Amino acid sequence: MAVHRIHLDELVSTGVLTVRGEEAHHAARVRRLAVGERVELLDGRGGVGRGTVQEIAKDRGEWVVGVSVQSVERVPPVSPRLEVCTAVPKGSRLSDLIDGLAQVGAAVWRPLVTDRGVRENWRREKLERVALEASKQSGRAWRMEIGEEAVLVQALRPADAGMSIVMADAQGGAYEPTANNVRLLVGPEGGWSEQEVAAARGAGASVCRFGVHVMRIETAAVVATGIVISAGRPPKSGPTCS
Amino acid sequence: MAVHRIHLDELVSTGVLTVRGEEAHHAARVRRLAVGERVELLDGRGGVGRGTVQEIAKDRGEWVVGVSVQSVERVPPVSPRLEVCTAVPKGSRLSDLIDGLAQVGAAVWRPLVTDRGVRENWRREKLERVALEASKQSGRAWRMEIGEEAVLVQALRPADAGMSIVMADAQGGAYEPTANNVRLLVGPEGGWSEQEVAAARGAGASVCRFGVHVMRIETAAVVATGIVISAGRPPKSGPTCS
Repeated sequence: MAVHRIHLDELVSTGVLTVRGEEAHHAARVRRLAVGERVELLDGRGGVGRGTVQEIAKDRGEWVVGVSVQSVERVPPVSPRLEVCTAVPKGSRLSDLIDGLAQVGAAVWRPLVTDRGVRENWRREKLERVALEASKQSGRAWRMEIGEEAVLVQALRPADAGMSIVMADAQGGAYEPTANNVRLLVGPEGGWSEQEVAAARGAGASVCRFGVHVMRIETAAVVATGIVISAGRPPKSGPTCS
Repeated sequence: MAVHRIHLDELVSTGVLTVRGEEAHHAARVRRLAVGERVELLDGRGGVGRGTVQEIAKDRGEWVVGVSVQSVERVPPVSPRLEVCTAVPKGSRLSDLIDGLAQVGAAVWRPLVTDRGVRENWRREKLERVALEASKQSGRAWRMEIGEEAVLVQALRPADAGMSIVMADAQGGAYEPTANNVRLLVGPEGGWSEQEVAAARGAGASVCRFGVHVMRIETAAVVATGIVISAGRPPKSGPTCS
């Protein structure tokens, strides 16, 4: 099995760190770590520490795990950076989406209001927990953020000059690397409306095809994110598809 | 909503087709199709028909849907063709894997016995049902097949001279198109053993990296399949990564 990973808000590079709460309970009771076992520590902001379990104890009914830290390194975020804005799938499929995006390496997920999408209720705390758990499991140095809801006109406005906007659509061309900072837009299963695609093209977004079949939102978003990350950095200039 | 799709074993190009069994029940009771509605007919072997519901009736307690066929076209399979051999994930994650692979466009899934994988029980009929349902939902003209279990030494032997074998592994290079017929090998979450990677290299397989983080089997397989299909056909010669 892979080394057990523990999330900590503060990661210092020397001495013994004390892990409490849910993370300590999980390490002590679910994973049943033993003193002397090696663990990896993640602060979700690029800090990755290596350490050894020094103590497992109970303090007023709560598990406490002491970890002796051997080293801490700073890991850069995944490049290209991907902000993935999607129509919101129903129920447990939203958790599947967050889980998959965290594994594949998206930096941020944001819910997108679309013409044909249905407005689903979701709880930020729950999605943050799913993202954190997936981030730990996949050894992400940077946790995936749950961002603010956007309407299309907002999502089509780049956050800065270096950001490229890519709309996933079956009518688009093949994706080619566009920028090191990409906002990927994934529509609902009913597809984008003609007005939405026209608005994207009008705003200078690239319209790209990421698959051969109709995919559900969570599959389409995870696959498209994988393709954009795998395609890597652009050779030189801006958008190339469609 | 997208047009309703019906799977039929035999697809003839003229006259009225009679749909019975589960597909008729689903069309009549779950989707509540009405006479005059347009439907798409799929035989799972490249035949895609367009038709109109002509009759919805019950025959000895069973739903029967009559569809008047307007046209039938033959659609070629997805290229590159992908046979995806994976370690078998536990429980419902296996259904998620089959569902995702069918959406993204794999031709065949096969269970792979690996050094660190756990042998899971699975039922062919269940997985075929999941594949068929996902094939319909994503409008696949060709249904995804559930193939035979393989051990690594078998999976490393190409089925024919035109098949390229690609092992997904974090130590590999970036994927570049290798062939129009690819067998993709995805290991268990604990990773391949050193012996397995050496065997793959020894057999002439490409070892390629499809992501930046550790992914669960079902996410890794679906993302890697998406990347291989999106990378398309090779410019000329053989394997390039690793």
